[in-house]
Amino acid sequence: MFRFEVLKTCPHTKARAGRLYTPHGTVDTPVFMPVGTLGTVKGMTQEMLEELGAEIILGNTYHLYLRPGHETIHELGGLHGFMSWPRAILTDSGGFQVFSLSKMRKVREEGVTFRSHLDGSSHFLSPEKAVEIQTALGSDILMQLDECPPYPVSHEAARKSMELTQRWGERSKQSWLGSAAGTLFGITQGSMFPDLRAEAARRLVDLDLPGYAIGGLSVGEPRPLTMEMVAACEPHLPRDRPRYVMGVGLPAEIPEYVALGIDMMDCVLPTRNARNGLLFTSQGRVVIRHARYAKDPEPLDPQCACLACRRYSRAYLRHLFLSGEILSSVLNTFHNLYFYLDRMRKIREAILAEDFPKYLSDIRVQPEPGV
Amino acid sequence: MFRFEVLKTCPHTKARAGRLYTPHGTVDTPVFMPVGTLGTVKGMTQEMLEELGAEIILGNTYHLYLRPGHETIHELGGLHGFMSWPRAILTDSGGFQVFSLSKMRKVREEGVTFRSHLDGSSHFLSPEKAVEIQTALGSDILMQLDECPPYPVSHEAARKSMELTQRWGERSKQSWLGSAAGTLFGITQGSMFPDLRAEAARRLVDLDLPGYAIGGLSVGEPRPLTMEMVAACEPHLPRDRPRYVMGVGLPAEIPEYVALGIDMMDCVLPTRNARNGLLFTSQGRVVIRHARYAKDPEPLDPQCACLACRRYSRAYLRHLFLSGEILSSVLNTFHNLYFYLDRMRKIREAILAEDFPKYLSDIRVQPEPGV
Repeated sequence: MFRFEVLKTCPHTKARAGRLYTPHGTVDTPVFMPVGTLGTVKGMTQEMLEELGAEIILGNTYHLYLRPGHETIHELGGLHGFMSWPRAILTDSGGFQVFSLSKMRKVREEGVTFRSHLDGSSHFLSPEKAVEIQTALGSDILMQLDECPPYPVSHEAARKSMELTQRWGERSKQSWLGSAAGTLFGITQGSMFPDLRAEAARRLVDLDLPGYAIGGLSVGEPRPLTMEMVAACEPHLPRDRPRYVMGVGLPAEIPEYVALGIDMMDCVLPTRNARNGLLFTSQGRVVIRHARYAKDPEPLDPQCACLACRRYSRAYLRHLFLSGEILSSVLNTFHNLYFYLDRMRKIREAILAEDFPKYLSDIRVQPEPGV
Repeated sequence: MFRFEVLKTCPHTKARAGRLYTPHGTVDTPVFMPVGTLGTVKGMTQEMLEELGAEIILGNTYHLYLRPGHETIHELGGLHGFMSWPRAILTDSGGFQVFSLSKMRKVREEGVTFRSHLDGSSHFLSPEKAVEIQTALGSDILMQLDECPPYPVSHEAARKSMELTQRWGERSKQSWLGSAAGTLFGITQGSMFPDLRAEAARRLVDLDLPGYAIGGLSVGEPRPLTMEMVAACEPHLPRDRPRYVMGVGLPAEIPEYVALGIDMMDCVLPTRNARNGLLFTSQGRVVIRHARYAKDPEPLDPQCACLACRRYSRAYLRHLFLSGEILSSVLNTFHNLYFYLDRMRKIREAILAEDFPKYLSDIRVQPEPGV
């Protein structure tokens, strides 16, 4: 049921335009995946996600496992049925949240024991269990369990962690082949060491998985280092498989990852920033609470065709934000996701039109709609 | 620009079906008006309100005066332009919130001095100022400033307060005639004393206003007393003017007010309860956090055609509520407002079909979808 095709490759960069075929529809790549942590992209109705043109969203295994539980979700038709989302879903393995959110975790060869951040209850997550949970969720794309080291970390510790992740990748594959549901992506680790990153990619590819992710980035390192790690992995990843950089990035970085040959990205930046009143526009970033917008009748982004920009003014958006109104989160989230998805659509069009280098140089001189 | 017509009167009760004509469209009556305190009906986009078929919403003068300020709203096209709501708007006078929310208020003949609940700043609200603010907001229906006594209160205090409200009604009319924007409704007070309520109605009608409201109810009194006060006013109110009971009520009470000859109602019950997970359904009330819904795949109300009931399960709504997700407030609010507006539509159809007494007796035996 799962297939990936590259439709066009940029002759001057490593950018590719492609298409993922999943049991829940096709996904044009490069793609940005909105994050739907707990079975909902915060602030959006599923109707709004459809209106945004989202073809794939991300669910967080750690959160869904704890609440409401993967077995409950399975009984209610999997995550697609539970949240009434007919399009594709990728789930992470839960590993990242175990390492960032949970208390008192202990990593062993078999897996990781951790305490829930919600109630302190004790849980065990192994590569096999991560596949089992994601299979119960009915994900279209499952991610292997990986160990995500903090930054910075020694070369020795990074190697140890990378090798554990490799072994977990093999066990994940065995477990997934048994279940035969969804498709499985492997994850390369290696912290900020190019040699480890290259080795991780080479060794992971030996597993012949349907897709490959680059994990353990965006953990506090300077951005040029992130880019360097992606560049270190890329030559070792097969051209006919999708490549996914996890947890990135800023709008200005999105085309840079694409130029490095990346097909998939996800990040909480557009949604979390929206709720905090930080908005990405074609004119640069807008901190909507700023007094300068108090009587501003203009749309947030005059060049944007989204729900929020078509109908409401900056002054109204500022008022909603300062008043803590729910509608503030809804309109801001809609706008920021529209901005990301629209940017990715334009990138794809540029690649297909063999115009990506020009797009890239144009975007590099634009004001950074950054954090 | 403002006109009211009665299309049909029930021969067995005092119920009427009518139509309000406003500068922002017609409003079929009887009507339930969703409350949009701060220029937003909490949890709804304006698109959703349109989908709900809301023809008129309420804005709170006290809140909008304090934040973002009526002058700012006026500069931005009035409340219609500011919130991008093309249909009718009724604003209260601010009086109710002054008496329920503000600190250190002092009532004199000229008006009321109060401190903001937001920052403690001092403000003065008079009948003239209330008209001025509502005119700046561009309301289609303005309410006179009234004094709303607490419950219970002595007959003497209630008379004094009622008479002050009468004099404020006269001053409001003079001020409104000068501004000639929107239309003005008077408010009868009199606490829980039928003689005062009747006198207030008789005297207010001498002002020959376009509409009449019954205020000072739903302040803690038992519900039969509320109904008695409405019944005490009604015979003295002219048949060719709309009658509005402020701040009511529960779904089971809505048809009872209609049967007493009331055309307009507003209440935060559907919206506030929605955010607290209390939902009104044709099967009675649903407390969505209840464990019994944890694996319930059914829609919230199988007889309901709203956005939430068409697409999502009780289990999903429970999960969203327990997780504190924004989508919980959005879907729950949409449902509860749909329930209220749908009930009012059915009441109106029954009156027009000369079938209202049967509707009333049927609804009286249904499970109370109450608080």
